[in-house]
Amino acid sequence: MVSHAQTKQAKMLNLVPYVRPIVGTQRMGHTFPGATVPFGMVQLSPDTDTIPYEMNGKYNPDVYKYCAGYQYDDKTIVGFSHTHLSGTGHSDLGDFLMMPTVGELKLNPGTADQPNSGFRSSFSHVTEVAEADYYKVKLDDYNIVAELTATNRVGFHQYTFPKSDSAHIILDLVSGIYNYEDKNVWTFVRVENDTLVTGYRQTSGWGRTRTVYFAMVFSKPFLGYGTKNYSKKQVYRGFWGKFDQNNNFPEIAGKQIRMHFDFATQQSEKIKVKFALSAVSTEGALLNLRTETPAWDFEKVKQQGQALWNKELNKVLITSDEDGRENFYTAMYHAFINPTTYMDVDGSYKGLDQNIHTAKGFINYTTFSLWDTHRALHPLFNIIQPKRNADMIQSMLAHYNQSSLHMLPVWSNSANENWCMTGYHSVSVIADAVVKGNAPFDVNKALDACVITARHRSYDGIGYYMDMGYIPADKNGSSASTTLEYAYDDWCIAQMAKKLNRTAIYNEFSKRSENYHNVFDASVGFMRARMSDGSFKKNFDPLSTANQGFIEGNSWNYSLYVPHAPAELITMMGGKKRFTAHLDSLFTMELPDKYFAETEDITRDGIIGNYVHGNEPSHHVAYLYNWTDEPWKTQSTIRMIMEKQYHPLPDGLGGNDDCGQMSAWYIFSALGFYPVAPGSDQYALGSPSVTSAIIQLDNGKTFTIEAKDQGNKNVYVQKVILDDKPLNRLYITHQEITQGGKLVFYMGSSPVIK
Amino acid sequence: MVSHAQTKQAKMLNLVPYVRPIVGTQRMGHTFPGATVPFGMVQLSPDTDTIPYEMNGKYNPDVYKYCAGYQYDDKTIVGFSHTHLSGTGHSDLGDFLMMPTVGELKLNPGTADQPNSGFRSSFSHVTEVAEADYYKVKLDDYNIVAELTATNRVGFHQYTFPKSDSAHIILDLVSGIYNYEDKNVWTFVRVENDTLVTGYRQTSGWGRTRTVYFAMVFSKPFLGYGTKNYSKKQVYRGFWGKFDQNNNFPEIAGKQIRMHFDFATQQSEKIKVKFALSAVSTEGALLNLRTETPAWDFEKVKQQGQALWNKELNKVLITSDEDGRENFYTAMYHAFINPTTYMDVDGSYKGLDQNIHTAKGFINYTTFSLWDTHRALHPLFNIIQPKRNADMIQSMLAHYNQSSLHMLPVWSNSANENWCMTGYHSVSVIADAVVKGNAPFDVNKALDACVITARHRSYDGIGYYMDMGYIPADKNGSSASTTLEYAYDDWCIAQMAKKLNRTAIYNEFSKRSENYHNVFDASVGFMRARMSDGSFKKNFDPLSTANQGFIEGNSWNYSLYVPHAPAELITMMGGKKRFTAHLDSLFTMELPDKYFAETEDITRDGIIGNYVHGNEPSHHVAYLYNWTDEPWKTQSTIRMIMEKQYHPLPDGLGGNDDCGQMSAWYIFSALGFYPVAPGSDQYALGSPSVTSAIIQLDNGKTFTIEAKDQGNKNVYVQKVILDDKPLNRLYITHQEITQGGKLVFYMGSSPVIK
Repeated sequence: MVSHAQTKQAKMLNLVPYVRPIVGTQRMGHTFPGATVPFGMVQLSPDTDTIPYEMNGKYNPDVYKYCAGYQYDDKTIVGFSHTHLSGTGHSDLGDFLMMPTVGELKLNPGTADQPNSGFRSSFSHVTEVAEADYYKVKLDDYNIVAELTATNRVGFHQYTFPKSDSAHIILDLVSGIYNYEDKNVWTFVRVENDTLVTGYRQTSGWGRTRTVYFAMVFSKPFLGYGTKNYSKKQVYRGFWGKFDQNNNFPEIAGKQIRMHFDFATQQSEKIKVKFALSAVSTEGALLNLRTETPAWDFEKVKQQGQALWNKELNKVLITSDEDGRENFYTAMYHAFINPTTYMDVDGSYKGLDQNIHTAKGFINYTTFSLWDTHRALHPLFNIIQPKRNADMIQSMLAHYNQSSLHMLPVWSNSANENWCMTGYHSVSVIADAVVKGNAPFDVNKALDACVITARHRSYDGIGYYMDMGYIPADKNGSSASTTLEYAYDDWCIAQMAKKLNRTAIYNEFSKRSENYHNVFDASVGFMRARMSDGSFKKNFDPLSTANQGFIEGNSWNYSLYVPHAPAELITMMGGKKRFTAHLDSLFTMELPDKYFAETEDITRDGIIGNYVHGNEPSHHVAYLYNWTDEPWKTQSTIRMIMEKQYHPLPDGLGGNDDCGQMSAWYIFSALGFYPVAPGSDQYALGSPSVTSAIIQLDNGKTFTIEAKDQGNKNVYVQKVILDDKPLNRLYITHQEITQGGKLVFYMGSSPVIK
Repeated sequence: MVSHAQTKQAKMLNLVPYVRPIVGTQRMGHTFPGATVPFGMVQLSPDTDTIPYEMNGKYNPDVYKYCAGYQYDDKTIVGFSHTHLSGTGHSDLGDFLMMPTVGELKLNPGTADQPNSGFRSSFSHVTEVAEADYYKVKLDDYNIVAELTATNRVGFHQYTFPKSDSAHIILDLVSGIYNYEDKNVWTFVRVENDTLVTGYRQTSGWGRTRTVYFAMVFSKPFLGYGTKNYSKKQVYRGFWGKFDQNNNFPEIAGKQIRMHFDFATQQSEKIKVKFALSAVSTEGALLNLRTETPAWDFEKVKQQGQALWNKELNKVLITSDEDGRENFYTAMYHAFINPTTYMDVDGSYKGLDQNIHTAKGFINYTTFSLWDTHRALHPLFNIIQPKRNADMIQSMLAHYNQSSLHMLPVWSNSANENWCMTGYHSVSVIADAVVKGNAPFDVNKALDACVITARHRSYDGIGYYMDMGYIPADKNGSSASTTLEYAYDDWCIAQMAKKLNRTAIYNEFSKRSENYHNVFDASVGFMRARMSDGSFKKNFDPLSTANQGFIEGNSWNYSLYVPHAPAELITMMGGKKRFTAHLDSLFTMELPDKYFAETEDITRDGIIGNYVHGNEPSHHVAYLYNWTDEPWKTQSTIRMIMEKQYHPLPDGLGGNDDCGQMSAWYIFSALGFYPVAPGSDQYALGSPSVTSAIIQLDNGKTFTIEAKDQGNKNVYVQKVILDDKPLNRLYITHQEITQGGKLVFYMGSSPVIK
C-alpha cells in the first residue's frame, strides 16, 4: 500500500516493484518483457521464436503470436533483439538479434521443435526476472546468465559466462519480427576494431523503406570473428574473392548475414555489450552510444533507467489493493513505452522523405498507432505527459510536412507511414490538445494540416464521403466503420476550428460530423453499410465482422460509435430505453462461436458478451450509459470490465495492448473518469477502482481522487464531491483537473437511482 | 590548324570542335557519346541496349559490349541515363533512364530484335550530334528530337515533341548497366508536385552498396503520372491497398519501378527536364539542381559546359594535321571524364563507411580505376591538372581513413571499393605526386597509408609476398603478375620514403621492390609463376593468358613489367641484345589465333604482333628500347602504335579506354615523352606526333614542344634541344617541364644510330 497518496507534496516513491513487464506476454497481449526506458528508442528484449511471416508464398498464421517477439509458453530463447513494438496486432522490427553461446559454434537459430539444431537455448521462468528496464534470464543450454538494461538509445547487455575456450556472441542480422524472404533489403557491417562494430539493417515490411543503424562495443576484445552470408544468390562477386570474407574480414554487406565474435572466458566472467541505435547513421549511433553510456557500469545504467521509470510512474500515486497496484503501474508502464523516441542525441532524425532533419525544440517521436491511441492514450498524455504529447504532435506535423501526399500520420513507423487501420485520427489527437490548451505549436497551421488531410479525396473513400456523405460499400471494404470514424474525426476538426475562430472550417466539418446518420438503417436500428445507389448492403448481420463494412468490429459494436454525439445517437437509435437495452444486450448476450471465429486479435476472454474489449472501437461504450437514465450501469460495467480484462499475470491482457491504448483505458477507468470523445474537454465519470490517487501535474498542482468506502462490491457511486462541492453532473472537465483539486467519490453497493 | 600554338600568351581557343565523343563507341572502346563536363558527376548519355548481365543464373557475354551503355552499330536507343563509366572493362551505373515518347504508352523497353514491343526508338547516326557536353538525336519512332547537356551534377534534357495528346516522359528505375535480377536493392520516388520529383536508386553490383539520389524538375507541369512495379513479389502490401498506387500516387518505393509522366504537346513544343544527382540525399540533389541550373536556358548550360571543356583543352595547344588534332583533343576529352566529382555543391559526400562526410578544402572524387590510370593518366594530371590530382589523392586518403580494412583504394566506385584488378597502385599515384612536388597534403600520413596498405597481409597474397618474396601460384591465380606489380608499387613507396627521409621504410620497400627477380625463370628467360615449394609452375606457355599466373596479359608482355628498373631487367633477361630481340619479336610475331581467343577486353586490332596495346600492362614497353642500344625503335614503334591504335572514328580505339589511360598514353606519346615509371621524375623521350605544342601550366608558365621537320615518315629523332641546349639523354624531368621551357625535336626519316 502506497501510504503517501494523501500527501500533497509526495516525495519520489519507488513504484518500479509494481511494474510487471511480463503482463500480456502470454497469448494476446503482444507485449514484451525486456528492457526499455520510457518512450525509448531501444526495446531490448528476448525473442522466443523467429518463425517467418511467410514461407514459399504462404502466410504463416502462427507468426501472429510473435508481434513482440516473446511468447510466455515457449521453451527457448533465440536471442535478444533491440527493437520491439508493444502490443500491436501486426508487426515489424526485432533488429539485431544477439545471442551468447559456448561450445560448438552454431549460426542458425534452430527451431522450437529441434532446439539443439541451432543456437537458441532453453530457459525457465524460474530464472527469469522482468522489471522495468531490467531483464535477466539463464540460458540453460549454455549456463550463461544474460542481463539486459537500456538507456533511450542504447541497449546494454551483460552476459555472465562459464569458463570456456569457445565462447561466442552471435549477431544475427537475418532475424526479425514478421520476417520473410525479401524483408531484409540490405545489411551492412563494419568491424572497426577488436571491440567496435557498426552497421545498419534496411528492411521492407510494415515500414516499407526502413533503415536502422547501429554501433556496438564489447567490454573485452574479441579474439576473432566470422561472417556467414545466407543469401541464396549473390550474382556479382568480382574481385572480392581476393579475401576470405568469412573470417576476420571487416567490411561486410549483403542481405542475409549472421556473425559471430569469439572469446575465451573465465568462470563467471562478464562480457558486456553496449549496442546503440540511430535512425540517421552509424556515426549517429556512435554518438548516441558515447553520450548515453560513457562507462561500463551495468548496475548504474539499470538504476538510471529505473529512476526514469519512477519519475514517470510517480505522476499518479494511488492507493489500492496489491493486484490493483500492479495492474495500475503495469498499465502506466505499458502506456509509456510508445510512441518511441526517433532522433539522435543531437536532434537529427530521418524523415518520411528519407532526408535527415533536425528536431528543433521538440523530441521527435515515431510509433504512432493512432487508430488505437487517439482514444485514451493521447488524452492521458494531455494530463500527465503534456510536454511529450505536444512534442508528439510536433512530430506528427513534421511527418505531415515531409509527406508528399500531404497527410498527417495514420500509423507512423520509423520514418514510414504504414497506413494501418482507418480514419485520420491524428486530427483527434491534435484537436484534443488544442481544445485542452496543451498546444505550444502553430495551431492554425496544425488545423490546416488536419483540413488538408481530411479533404484528401484519393485517400480511403474520402472523395465518396465528401460527395455522398458516406463511403459506399461497393467501393470500400470498411465503408460503414470508416464513415463513422470520419464523422467523429470531422467533429474534432470542427471543435478545433471553433476554438480558433475559423468559422468556415467549423461549419464545413460540423456538417460532415453528422454523416453518421447516413449509415444508419432505421429499419433495423443498426449502423449498416450502404451501396453507391443509396440502398443498404444486402445480407446484413449485425453480429458478423465478415464482409459487413466494419473493420475489427461488428455492427452491434460499431452502431455505438458516435462518441461525439451520444445524445443524438440515442435519439436516432430509438430513445434512451431502447438504447439502454441495446447496451445491456451487448454486454450480456452469448455470441455464437461462429462469430467469434471471425474476430481478429482477441481471445475468447477478450469478449464480454458481444462487447469486444480487446479491440478498440468500443472502448467508450460502457460510458454511454451515462447518457441514458441508468448511469449506474456505466459504473458496474466498468468495474466488471476491469475485473475481467486486467490481471497482473502473463496472460493478464485479453487483447493486444495496442501501444498502450488498452492500458490507458485502464488507467482512466481506475481513476474514475474517461475521455469518451477526445476533442471535448469533458471526461465521463465512471467508477474508480483505486481507493485514492494523486495526479501530480507538470504545472506543480495536484488533482486528488478519493473513493470513500471503496470495495469490490461497492462499485456504485453514491455521490461525487468536487472541490468540496457536490458535482451534479456525470463529467468533469480538463480544466478542473489541471487547475488542481480534489474529486471525492462516495461508493456503495447499490446504484443510486434518480 | 591551331595557329596560335607558338604564341606564349595564347588566348582561349575553341578546341571543342576537335573533340569527337563518338570515338571509341564502336566495339571495344567502351566510351559513351553523351554529355558531361570535365570530371563531372553526371554523364548523361543514350543507352542503346539494356540487356542483363545475367539471366536465370547464366552470364550473358553480350553485356560486355554495353559497359558504357552505347554501341555504335545498334539501331535503337532505349533512353538516356545519367551515369556512365568511360572505357571500363566491367561496368555499373546507367542510373535513371529517361525516354520521351508519344502515342500508346509502353513501359517496357522492348528488345533489339523486336524494338516495337517497347518504348525504345530507332535512330540514325545521320541525325546524331555528339559534342563535348552536347548530344542530339532524333528518335525516329516518335519524331522527337532529344538534346542533352549537363553541368557537373545536373543532366539537362530538351525534348522537342510533335503535336500529341499523348506525350510521355518515361523514368525507368529498373534499367541499368550490367543489370541483373537482384541488382536493384531498392528504389524510392516522391512526386513532390506537378513538376518536381525526387528519389533514389540503391544497387548492389560492381559497387556493392551504392545509392544515388536524384531531384528532377520538368519545365512544364505534367497532366498526370503513373507507376508500375515490376517486382515479381512484394510480400507485404497491408493497408497500401487503400490507394490506387499506379496512378498519380506520389509516394513510391520498391525494387523494379518504371514511371511515366504524361503531357499534351504542341507541334515542336520543347519540354525540358533538369535532373540532378547527389550521393548524399534528395535534399542534396535539389540543392545541386538549384545551384547549378537556376534557369531553363538549355543553350546557356551547353555553352557553359563547352566553355569548361575549352578551359581544360586549352591546357595543351598543339599544331598537327586534322586527324592528329581530333585524336589529341578527343584523347584530352576522354582523359578528363574520370575520376568523377563525388560531392554535393556544399562539399558533402557519402564515404566508404556510408556516413556523410564533408570535403574540406578539396573536391572529393570517385571512379578511380587505378590499375589502369596510375600508369599515365595521373602522371599527366601532375603536369596539367595538378590541383585536381592533389584533390584526387586527398579523396583517396579520405577513402583510406573511412576503410575499416585500412587500405587505400584499388578501384574506388561511388563510396564503394570494388577491388577490381590487382596491385595497390594508389601508392604509385601518391608517390608520383610527392616525388614531383605536387603534394599539398600531409605527406607523412600519406606515406603511412601506403605502408599500411602494402603490409596488409590478408590482401591478395601480400602475406606470402612478404614472407616468401613472391606470391605462390598454388595460392593465387594472378601470382606472377601481382608479384611484379607489388614490386613496382613497393619501389614507389621507397621513392616517397626517400624523399621524406623515412629511411627504415625506404630500406624495407627498396628490398621488396626487387622481388621481380623471384618470378623470373632464367632457364626460359621469362617471368613465370612459381609454386609454394619454390619450383616454377608446370606447363609454362609464355604466349598464353590462361592459367599462367598473369592477369590481362601473358608472360611475353609481363616479362617486361619492371618499369622501375629497366636496366636491371635487361641484365636479368640476358643483356641488351637479347632484350632488344625480345622486344622486336613482341611487336612483330604472329600471335596464333588460339591465344587471341584467350585475351580479354581487346579486338584483334588491339594487338600488334603479341603486343597488346588494348590492355595496360605493356603501355611502357615500347619506351624500353630507350634502355637498349637501339632507342630509335622506341621512336618508330610509338609512332606505329599511335598510327594503328588511334583514329578519330567510332571504332578508333582498339581496346577499352579504361577511364582515360589509353588516352593519356596517346597524349604523352603525341607530345614526345612518357612516364615509364610513375614515382620517378623522369619521362622517357619518344617521337612526338604533333608539329608543336604548348603546355599551359597552372603556375603560369608554358612548356613548348616543337618537332622540326615533322612528318609521317620523319618519325626518328635526330637531335633534341632543351632550352637551347642539346639534350644528351633520353629523358626529361618533371621540373624541366614545370619550370617552363622549350623542347625541340629535330625529326628525320632515318634513325640516328650512335
